[in-house]
Amino acid sequence: MAKTTAAITFVTGNAKKLQEVQQILGQGFPFELTNRKIDLPELQGEPEDISREKCRLAAAEVKGPVMVEDTSLCFNALHGLPGPYIKWFLDKTGHVGLNNLLAAYPDKSAYAQCIFAFTTGPGAEIQTFVGRTEGKIVPARGPTDFGWDPVFQPDGFEETYAEMDKTIKNSISHRGRSLSALCAYFDTHKAELEKQLAA
Amino acid sequence: MAKTTAAITFVTGNAKKLQEVQQILGQGFPFELTNRKIDLPELQGEPEDISREKCRLAAAEVKGPVMVEDTSLCFNALHGLPGPYIKWFLDKTGHVGLNNLLAAYPDKSAYAQCIFAFTTGPGAEIQTFVGRTEGKIVPARGPTDFGWDPVFQPDGFEETYAEMDKTIKNSISHRGRSLSALCAYFDTHKAELEKQLAA
Repeated sequence: MAKTTAAITFVTGNAKKLQEVQQILGQGFPFELTNRKIDLPELQGEPEDISREKCRLAAAEVKGPVMVEDTSLCFNALHGLPGPYIKWFLDKTGHVGLNNLLAAYPDKSAYAQCIFAFTTGPGAEIQTFVGRTEGKIVPARGPTDFGWDPVFQPDGFEETYAEMDKTIKNSISHRGRSLSALCAYFDTHKAELEKQLAA
Repeated sequence: MAKTTAAITFVTGNAKKLQEVQQILGQGFPFELTNRKIDLPELQGEPEDISREKCRLAAAEVKGPVMVEDTSLCFNALHGLPGPYIKWFLDKTGHVGLNNLLAAYPDKSAYAQCIFAFTTGPGAEIQTFVGRTEGKIVPARGPTDFGWDPVFQPDGFEETYAEMDKTIKNSISHRGRSLSALCAYFDTHKAELEKQLAA
């Protein structure tokens, strides 16, 4: 008989995000995934450091296994900035403002980055799963209802994220890649994790 | 006889910063000021929110009266950004990079902002003291040993912060103005604060 395992808490107030992740992780994912909104501080720093610290704080709060997600949009000419601060630049200066940040630079290349971080509990090791999609910053094209998607055109495509078919986007997106890495980790460490997460 | 009052902890690992503040606050300042390095998270958000939260966290850690300081450099064309993230932009893109952020905008105006935040202890009200100096972003001039000082030229002056005489700079600086507001507050609330801070 299968042992009962502790559910992994995905830190998000957004039930749709949980569904999406459950869908991508698929039937084969051996653990229950629930979501919970936790007020964590939004931190400054290097993207991976931010994810680790956020995961650590979440585990301390939940007192159990947790998963957190963070996204950055990193401009190569700006050495990775705005990076984790992209949402402030989008909120305050819009799609035109994001393009304007690169006005002085011929290099419009950028990468979208998603980091999922996971730990089995407070004090335990933190695993990060970095998913990156290379592309460039372009004047906005496509539906404008999802963040900076209209200004990011992934390499090898003529469409921006916003213009792309959702299935295709998921297959090459920074988020999809981060989740693939997470899935691979859970597959490889299944037995070990089942032991650690056994209730 | 004067009552003993609890020292106010200025959160900084930099003893020189403490000295500077003690000097500006002057002999008339009725409380003892000490410094202590505390590892506080660097937060994202609006500058005043960041200061308040940092002050709250510091008071919880120190369990007594604390003072924290934060600085932003806010570009008007970017609606206040980079603001609290200025140090990342300076570190990664340098003085030229800061100028480049405004390449698409004729408006080069900016303000330097310092916020001191003070509270008498955990759970107590937090006072913030915002000091602003208006100016503009210019190609770097003057000694390059102090942050973004070479690219900020305050209104009414032909020199950048870096080129200015230190005494003149202190008299018009965002930091000087924030500390003046703090001094005024302590003067006005002296009796009340002495009671609250009595050991």
